[in-house]
Parts: sequence; structure tokens; C-alpha cells
Amino acid sequence: MSHINLIPGEQGIRLSTLSPKYLHTNSTSHTWPFSAIAELIDNAYDPDVDASQLWIDIKRYGTRSDHCLTFTDNGEGMDSLKLHKMLSFGFCEKVAKNDHLPVGHYGNGFKSGSMRLGKDAIVFTKQQDSRSVGLLSQTYLEEIKAQTILVPIVSWDSNGDMVERADGDKALRDILKYSLFKTEAELQEQFNNIPSESGTRIVISGMRKTQDGNPEFDFRSDIHDIRIPDDVESESNKYRRQERQNHIPESDYSLRAYCSILYLRPRMQIILRGKKVRTTVIAKSLSKTEVDTYKPQGTSKPIKVTFGFSQNKNHYGIMMYHRNRLIKPYVRVGYQLRANDFGVGVIGVIQCDYLKPTHNKQDFDYTKAYRSSMSALGSKLNDYWNEKKGKAQTNSNALIPEPKEVESVPDQLWVQCDNPECLKWRKLPASVKSEDLPEKWYCYDHPEKQWRSCDVPEELEEEKEEAVQPYVKKQKKRLEKELEEKKRREKVNRSL
Amino acid sequence: MSHINLIPGEQGIRLSTLSPKYLHTNSTSHTWPFSAIAELIDNAYDPDVDASQLWIDIKRYGTRSDHCLTFTDNGEGMDSLKLHKMLSFGFCEKVAKNDHLPVGHYGNGFKSGSMRLGKDAIVFTKQQDSRSVGLLSQTYLEEIKAQTILVPIVSWDSNGDMVERADGDKALRDILKYSLFKTEAELQEQFNNIPSESGTRIVISGMRKTQDGNPEFDFRSDIHDIRIPDDVESESNKYRRQERQNHIPESDYSLRAYCSILYLRPRMQIILRGKKVRTTVIAKSLSKTEVDTYKPQGTSKPIKVTFGFSQNKNHYGIMMYHRNRLIKPYVRVGYQLRANDFGVGVIGVIQCDYLKPTHNKQDFDYTKAYRSSMSALGSKLNDYWNEKKGKAQTNSNALIPEPKEVESVPDQLWVQCDNPECLKWRKLPASVKSEDLPEKWYCYDHPEKQWRSCDVPEELEEEKEEAVQPYVKKQKKRLEKELEEKKRREKVNRSL
Repeated sequence: MSHINLIPGEQGIRLSTLSPKYLHTNSTSHTWPFSAIAELIDNAYDPDVDASQLWIDIKRYGTRSDHCLTFTDNGEGMDSLKLHKMLSFGFCEKVAKNDHLPVGHYGNGFKSGSMRLGKDAIVFTKQQDSRSVGLLSQTYLEEIKAQTILVPIVSWDSNGDMVERADGDKALRDILKYSLFKTEAELQEQFNNIPSESGTRIVISGMRKTQDGNPEFDFRSDIHDIRIPDDVESESNKYRRQERQNHIPESDYSLRAYCSILYLRPRMQIILRGKKVRTTVIAKSLSKTEVDTYKPQGTSKPIKVTFGFSQNKNHYGIMMYHRNRLIKPYVRVGYQLRANDFGVGVIGVIQCDYLKPTHNKQDFDYTKAYRSSMSALGSKLNDYWNEKKGKAQTNSNALIPEPKEVESVPDQLWVQCDNPECLKWRKLPASVKSEDLPEKWYCYDHPEKQWRSCDVPEELEEEKEEAVQPYVKKQKKRLEKELEEKKRREKVNRSL
Repeated sequence: MSHINLIPGEQGIRLSTLSPKYLHTNSTSHTWPFSAIAELIDNAYDPDVDASQLWIDIKRYGTRSDHCLTFTDNGEGMDSLKLHKMLSFGFCEKVAKNDHLPVGHYGNGFKSGSMRLGKDAIVFTKQQDSRSVGLLSQTYLEEIKAQTILVPIVSWDSNGDMVERADGDKALRDILKYSLFKTEAELQEQFNNIPSESGTRIVISGMRKTQDGNPEFDFRSDIHDIRIPDDVESESNKYRRQERQNHIPESDYSLRAYCSILYLRPRMQIILRGKKVRTTVIAKSLSKTEVDTYKPQGTSKPIKVTFGFSQNKNHYGIMMYHRNRLIKPYVRVGYQLRANDFGVGVIGVIQCDYLKPTHNKQDFDYTKAYRSSMSALGSKLNDYWNEKKGKAQTNSNALIPEPKEVESVPDQLWVQCDNPECLKWRKLPASVKSEDLPEKWYCYDHPEKQWRSCDVPEELEEEKEEAVQPYVKKQKKRLEKELEEKKRREKVNRSL
């Protein structure tokens, strides 16, 4: 019996090995292409890299390729060991840095994401004392008829000398033969494309095409966006995510729109095809905002749920974040699941760190804790609606009048400083309107003097005792007060 | 720079390696536990194993464990190389055998499925000239602090002598130390539990528990079933799959019910906790059946879509199969997505081999081809409904009267022979009623003499020219005929 194709492990115990075909297998959990892109954005965002800026671009390399996708960040960069782990499976060593929790957890994002977008990826990464390049390529592995996944990696030290020359020479030979870059000079040029001392650049080529031979993405309709094309030329056939019923949020088909809500509290600028993504802090863009709380079973601290009315009343539901990263947007709950107009326009924002995201980070593991959360969020949304709009009829079949038009002015206007070293969020006074803001805004533009410097710490969100009390309780208190007041007055009247 | 934890590959090119943690990562795409079980059923069903019987049981081993899940089949078994590939990633060499297409395709089902259900799995497999055992265990890898995934494998030849003794001894030592089975005799007993000359037995232990410490499955409510417990003690809180809105099919929470529809044309008996699963051939259980066709773009042959009324009018939608295996059950399309009673009770059955299943085989890749299919299935279902029930009002907001009660007698009664060597499906005459059939039925029970032997080939499904014509066309033809007839009669009248 022969085991020649499978590498034996240490101490006679066999290793589980990886077939090159597994690169595709592993990518099949990303059914939505932006879900794959988000994995690469997370890698730049996470605290081990902690980039303050990420550039996403498309690029052709000479006559050699169709469009490639490039991701370039100004973060920490990697040494060759870390790069090797990135090109391996399940090695996640990300840890929290202060309040910055890593999104990555499974050690799989780069592989599943990049191999979903294209057949081949090459990673350039530099630190002060090293430059490394690594290749993860299905085309390469097919051409050399590899039995397992090989990942050529070359490193140079700060003097430009190759590290581990014996192995490096062979790896370099394969990279120059099988990647888009045919000379050492071309490789070095890619390092120079990283605009800071340290950082990482990823080039994805062999991009996936649709069955009719067209690129999966539409790069033309908006030169500052990457979009998923409509299925046919008609408004109603806009690309929509599978779970949508009627309204299609722009984030389903516009990468710019998706990036603008990808993080609950953005801490990294994303520059998409040359133009900065203007981030939206959802919870701060709502009107008639109320804060409720939810205490999941087995946790000690209640979690904040912010409800409010969306500025676009067609897009509503719960925005579910996990460790600051959007997992499920616009999830309808409570009244919103019924075939009437109750709950329309209401957005809820919650950060569910107590739940576990699935393989593709677009859903949560479907546990009892998840189901309880959804049910609780449904009742809370109903409470909010009842308070703001009057109690709904329990008979859901009755014909129900259209709810009154929603106010579209957000309760607060926040803006983020464009200085990449700062990126703080500032609350503006009520007199400033969103449409009056310049394209680029810096702390020194603030109308109020005390905030007019990047050195001033960010204003804390209201965490007053009252704010974390469920507003239903608050309402009860108010009613109790009114009742007391009434009694008092009656008493006074009687005594007169 | 140190690479000690990562094994270098051939020719100086580094290997991509597998962290033990990746076993969990990879399992996170199964959000529904039966989706993990289905992977193990597929492995027994697929043509390389081609079992005619699969036993699924629960078992405790002495005082050493909680309940374990066991899967035992009478299929081909594996040699140690094939077992090693099964414990590796992406090595799928399954090919079609006559008309029997493999469900497995990614080389990942055993790993993602077993590691979703429990922390540890051990595989016993025998063929005429070999017996092999292999361990895939998260507990083991944690305890030995492994840096990569090691899979101890031991093989014996037909004389009972260990193959590759040097490696085998070390593997055996680890298996006896870290698995549930503490002596060689206990291992041999597991081989003896495989009731045929060749076959495979999988024991999954360290079964997942819910947050409150209870087993994920309910083994008590039905001693012949494995069920997902209700969230709370109430009818309306039965476990339901995420996409459900109101009605909850039994297959969501009963493994027996799920197994009964898992294959479009069953070819393997599943014996669940001692009792055979009575398979339902959905397309043959409907009433008012009509066959329509759908020709996906880029394919040459139209695909059959069978519509009919379900016997349980609460459970309806499209049953989407891929290579005979159920991928998505009860997917609502067309009228069924509206908040009225149109389309209620209608089942559609389609085999979508032109689409690609996702990582967890519970959905299709969300491509244009998929979206076109869903839209076409919607119109076809509407056509069917309009023909059977009268045209729906286009104004979906109008209050609509309840549709008339659906007839619940299926058009045809089919039964499967219980002889595991036969398993053929036989159509019964209209006089026989489903409820009159015995628990076990064999070909020699057939009321019609010509079918009364397992040697008689299975009756072909109606594939008459008419049957593959869309019935809308048929209807048009009928109308044309009526029109001609009318004209003819008028002509006759005039000539009189």
C-alpha cells in the first residue's frame, strides 16, 4: 500500500494533508462576493495589523492579465513566519489591543476570501527590517501538478539580502515563473507601492467570471466603486442578497455602501478606487433614537440596543454587529415580519459579541442563544414602535392605515476627522447640516473651540444611568410620576 | 527567523499547514446539526462506498462517555490510503458509477460534519484483506499540544498482522491512549460491529452541548428518532430552520423525517435507532401532478419540474435536489412569497445539477443562474396554480378568500422493496391504500404478478413525449383543439 502522495508527520503519526482543490472547497462558503472582500478588509483592520488606511483598487498588469483587485494597507506588516501562517489554515494569533478586539478568529479569512474572488493571490509585506512575498495560487498548483498546497515564500532582510537563500531561491524561481510578476524588479515595485514604512499589499488575479464570461464585478458604472451588476437592465432586477424580500439596500450591490457600514465604530479609512469611503455610524444617523437593553442568558452585563428611524424608510431591520464588524444587516424582526406597515423604517443596532459568527462571517451560529436574541429583539422593536406610533392591532390581517411619514433628521450629526493619525469622531452642534460639510473634514474645522484639535480625546457616548435603562421602564416611571402628580392635585383640590 | 512549528515541503517550497484549531473553523458552516449528519450519510450513499444499508445509532461506551453517535454501513470499506485521504482535506476522488452520481465533491464532508457534531471521531473500516482504524480528534490534538493536525492510522492485513509496523505501533499507542477504546480487543470489537464483509463504522464522541449543558439532541422523546429539542415547552417554539416563517416542517427537527426526503430516489436503507426510515419519494406523493420543464441558460437539455399538491397543505414550496440529494427543502417562490393564500399547498420538485452547492450543502452558490432559476420556478408555480385554482388577482393587497381544500390522495402509490439487495420501487394499483401496507414490504407482496420478483427491473418513470412538454403548452394545445372543434361545429351548423 502506497502513501507516496501524502507526507508522513513527526514520530510516525501521519499528517492530515491539504489537497490543492481544497482552496476552492474552502471558498464556497462565501456566496456573496462582498463577504469575501470583507475578510481582506478585516485583516487590515484587526489589531495585529491596525492599519489606519486601506486602499482598494483595480489594476491591470501589462498585457498579462484582466483586472486584478489590490488591497494595500499601511499597517504593521508581517515577518515571513507570520506570512507563512497567513498562507496556512487555522493559525490565528490575534489578540485584543486595548478596546480593539480582533474580528478574525478562525485563521481562515485570507484563504476563503481571496480564493473566492480569484484563482490566485500574491502577498507583499514589509516591516522595518524585512520584506517578504508569498504566493497562494490555484493556477500554480495545477501547473506543477502539486499533491498538496505549496506556498512559495521569499524574504529579504533590511540590506536587501535574501533570507534562507537555499529555500528562497527555489521559491523565487516559482514566483517569477508562475505569478504576474516576471522579474525581481517588478516584485520590488510592488513593495514600493506600499506608501508607508510597513504594510501589506495583496494582488488577486484570475478574478472569477460569471457563466457568460463577464467579470463578476461591474467596474464601469461608477469609477469610484466596485459593484455587483444587475441581473438584467431593470430597476427591479438589481442584485439583492438572498434573504431580501422587497427592498434592496445599496450595500447589497455597492462595495462603497457596504464599506460605509461595515464597522460599527470605524477606526480605519477605506479608500476605494481613489475616493475615501464616507463612513456612516448607523446608530448616530437615526432620528427619535431610544436605547433599550438586552441581557442574554449566561452573561452578566446587559447589552445596549439602539432603536431609531432610518433616514431611508425603505431600509430597516436590525443591524447585527460582532466585535464592531457588521455580520447581518437589515434583519427584520417582530412587526417587520408581518405583511403590514408596522415597524417600517425602524432600525435597531446591536453588538452581539456573545454570539458566534459562522464560517463566512455573514451569519451567526444558529443556536438557542441566537434564537432567543431574535425573539427578544422582536418584542423590543414592537415596544419601540408602539411607543412612537401607537399600539398595533393584534389582528394582523386587518387592513392598516399607512403610518405617518417618518422624520428624517438624525438626532445628532457626527463627523470623522480625515487626518489618518486621528480619525476621531466629533459631534457637531445642531446648527450644522450634513450637506454643508466639506469633502474632507478635520478637527480644526470644528465650530466649537474646545474640540478644535486632534489632541482632544473623543467625546464619550452618553452612558448616563438613564440611557442604559430600558425606555419601557422610563415610560412606566413617567406614567407613575403623572399619576402621583394627578393624585397630588386631587388632594390639593379636595383640601381647598 | 524560526519556522520550527511549520513543516517544510519538498524542494524547499513551504507547505501550507493545518492548525488543529482549523477542525473547528471548518465545521462552522454547518449551522443546522442535521446538515452535519447528512454529510456522513452521503459518504455511505456515494458510489465509491455504495452501501445498501446504513445504521445510525446512539451508544455509551462503559462509564467513559456521554452518548456517542455511530454510523455503520455495509459498503465497500476503505484501504488505509483512502482512509488517510478521508482524514485529509480536499481529496475527493469520487466518480459516477452508471447513473449513480456522487454527492460528495469537495473532499470535506467527513471533517466538517463530524467536527460539528462532536470533538472527536474514530473511523473503523474493513475490506476483505484489510482492517484500518483512524482517529480525528480535537481532544487528542489539544492534549499532545500538536502544532498541526495529526491523524493516527493503524492497518492490519487479512492475517491480522499490522501493516507498516514502525509507524503503526506509535499510532496504535496514541489511539489506545486518547480514544474511547482502551485495548486492541475493544478496537476489534468495533470491526465486528460492522455486519458485513466490508464496511465502515464511525463513532463520534464529545458530542456538542448547548449553553445550558444539555446535549444538543433530544434522544428521549422518540426512541427511534434523533430530534432537535424545542426551545421552550410550547408547540409554537418547536425548533425551526432559520429561513422558516410560520409553518415548520417536521424535517427541521426530526432526523427521521429529514432522512425520509434526503434523496430524491432513495437507493440506500437508513436504519435509525433500530427502525428503518420509511422513505418518501416526494414527486410520487403529490396529487394533481403536472410536469413542467425548465431550460437553464447554457444547458442543452430541459429539466423536469414536477408540481403537485402536498398531502400536508402547511408544508409547501420547491424541493431543490442536486445529484439526487436534497439541498433546499420548501423554498417558497412566486405567489407563495406574498401575504395571501395563493400557492399554498403546492410542492415543486426539481433536480438542479447545473447549480453548485455551497460549503455546507444546504444552499446553492448564489449566482445569476440560481437567481434566474428561482424566478422561473416562481412563474411556473404561478402558472400551475392558475390552471388548478383559477387565475390570481394581480392586486396582492386585496383580501382573498381561502382556497378550496386540497385533495390529499396522491396520484400514484409507490412502495420500496425492503430486501436490501433489491430496494426497487414498485408502483401499486389504485386499489391499494398507503395505510394498508405492512411495515416491511417485498416485491413478492406485489398484487400484480408481473412485478412479483426482485429480478424484475424497476418500472421507468413516465417519460412519454407528452410528459416532458410544459403543461402550459399542453393547455395551449388543448385550447387550440377546442377552438378548432368550435369552428368545425360552427361550419357544420352553417352548412346545415
